[in-house]
Amino acid sequence: MCLPLCLKKMRGLSRRGFLASSVLAGGGVLLAQPPKSSAGDSRRPGEGVRFSRVVDLTHRLTVDFPTGSGQPQLKLERVSARPPDRWNIFRWVVHEHTGTHLDAPLHCSVKDSADLIPAERLVGLVAIVDIRAKAAANADVELTVDDLKQWESQHGQIAAGGIVAMCSGWDAHVRTAKFRNAGSDGALHTPGFHREAVDFLLAEREVAGIVVDTLSLDRGLSHDFPVHERWLGANRWGLECVANLGELPPAGATMVVGAPKIAGASGGPSRVFALV
Amino acid sequence: MCLPLCLKKMRGLSRRGFLASSVLAGGGVLLAQPPKSSAGDSRRPGEGVRFSRVVDLTHRLTVDFPTGSGQPQLKLERVSARPPDRWNIFRWVVHEHTGTHLDAPLHCSVKDSADLIPAERLVGLVAIVDIRAKAAANADVELTVDDLKQWESQHGQIAAGGIVAMCSGWDAHVRTAKFRNAGSDGALHTPGFHREAVDFLLAEREVAGIVVDTLSLDRGLSHDFPVHERWLGANRWGLECVANLGELPPAGATMVVGAPKIAGASGGPSRVFALV
Repeated sequence: MCLPLCLKKMRGLSRRGFLASSVLAGGGVLLAQPPKSSAGDSRRPGEGVRFSRVVDLTHRLTVDFPTGSGQPQLKLERVSARPPDRWNIFRWVVHEHTGTHLDAPLHCSVKDSADLIPAERLVGLVAIVDIRAKAAANADVELTVDDLKQWESQHGQIAAGGIVAMCSGWDAHVRTAKFRNAGSDGALHTPGFHREAVDFLLAEREVAGIVVDTLSLDRGLSHDFPVHERWLGANRWGLECVANLGELPPAGATMVVGAPKIAGASGGPSRVFALV
Repeated sequence: MCLPLCLKKMRGLSRRGFLASSVLAGGGVLLAQPPKSSAGDSRRPGEGVRFSRVVDLTHRLTVDFPTGSGQPQLKLERVSARPPDRWNIFRWVVHEHTGTHLDAPLHCSVKDSADLIPAERLVGLVAIVDIRAKAAANADVELTVDDLKQWESQHGQIAAGGIVAMCSGWDAHVRTAKFRNAGSDGALHTPGFHREAVDFLLAEREVAGIVVDTLSLDRGLSHDFPVHERWLGANRWGLECVANLGELPPAGATMVVGAPKIAGASGGPSRVFALV
C-alpha cells in the first residue's frame, strides 16, 4: 500500500491567545480578544494540521543523566520480566526535576501545580533566542532584554500565548562534565535568563512559558534564583534541559509541551516536540 | 497589550508518512514515498501550524487512579517543601502502566522500549472509531474490522502513519467502579480491540499506534491478550486510559503523544493532546 501524501490547504484562526487569557492567574496583561469566525478556514473535514517535520526537543533520560545536585535522580525497579512473565514492567523512582522537565509554578510559589496548567498554555509559537556565540565565550552569560529586542527587530513582536526559548547550545554538552560545569568555587557555570528579561516579558508581553537548554532557568552561578522566583511566582511555567533548539527556525515553530498531569506535581519529566 | 491574533495561511506537505516509513521494524507495508518539494508551501517565515483548539486527551493522574490490578500504582514522596525550603519538590514512585499511558512494544515483546519510538511516529492523524452505542449495551464488546470499514466508508482510508482510536465512552466512568467493571467472575468487563481488527491494520494499513479509553487494548475479559501480543509484537505502540475522544471529530484531528523518553521503559504516563 502506498498512499499518496495528500497536499492540504488550510486557513484558520488560532484561539490559543483567547483561551489562554481566561486562565492567567499571575502578572502580565490579559487579552480580551475573542475568537474570530472561521469564515476564512478552508480546511475540509478530515484535514489535519500542516507541518513539514517533527523535531524532538527531549533528551533521552538515563539513570546517569546530569542533575543540578550531581546526585542520580532516576531509578528503574523491575516489576516483571518477559520471560518468564507475559509483561515487561518497571516502576520509576524519579525526582520531578530530572531530564527534560517542567518547572510548574508550584515549584517556587504557592501557585499552580503541573496538572493545573491548561492544555492551551502548553502549545504555542516558540521564539528561539540564539545566544550561542555569547555562551561559547562566557559560560556565565545571561539572555538579556537586548537579546529579546534584537529577536523582535528581526521577527516581529513575540506572539501572545507564545514561548521564549534560550538557545545557548548547552545541550551539546549533555554527556560531558561541561553540562554542569562545576567550578572550583562549587558553583555551576551555565547560561540562563537575566531577571530583567523576565521582568520585560511579564510586563510587556503575554508569554506562556520560558525554556532553557541548561539545567536551570537562572544561570548556574545564581544563589537567589530571581528568574525562578519572578517567573514561576507569576504563575508561569518553565522548561529545563531541552534539546535540539538549534534545529529550529528562529521563528515559526510550534512547541508542544507534553508536561505531566500528575495531581500536585511541582513539575516533572516531559516530552517536548516542535512542529515546523 | 492586546495583540491581534494574526490570520495565517499555509500550504505545505507532510513528510510524516515518509519519515515514519524508514523506522518501521514490524509488520505492515512500508511506504516508499519521498517528500515532495515545498514549492506549494506558501507559509511565510514565522508562521506556525494552524489549528482552532487543543483538546487534552489526558486524565488527571491521582494516587487513587483506577488500575488493572486494583492496587494503587502512584506515590508522591516529598523531597522538599516551601516554606521552609525554597523549592517544592516530590519524588514519584510510579508503575509504568498507570493513568493515561503508553504501552511500548517492549511491554509485551523483545521490540522497542519507549525511548526508541521515533518522534515522527508519535504525531499523526487520528481516526476516531465510535463504538459508544455498542459499548453501552455490552461492556464486553470489541472494535471489529467492520467498525473500521464503516469508518473508512465515511471518511476514506485510514491515513498512512496515522492512529486509530476506540471511542467507547468508557472515560466517563473513570471515577466509578464501572471503569474497571470487575465481575463476580473476577474478570474485568470493558471494551477493547478485536484481534482481527488489529490483524487487518497490520496487514492492510500502515498505522503507527492504537488508542483506547479503557484500561486495556484487549477487552477486560481477555486471558491471552491477543491484541497486545500481535500489535506490540509488530513493534507498534498503544495508548490506554485516554480521555475526551468524544470531543474530537471522527476524522481530521492530529494527535500528539507526549510519551516518556526514559531509556528502557516499557511505557509510562504520557501527556496526550489533539490539535483540531
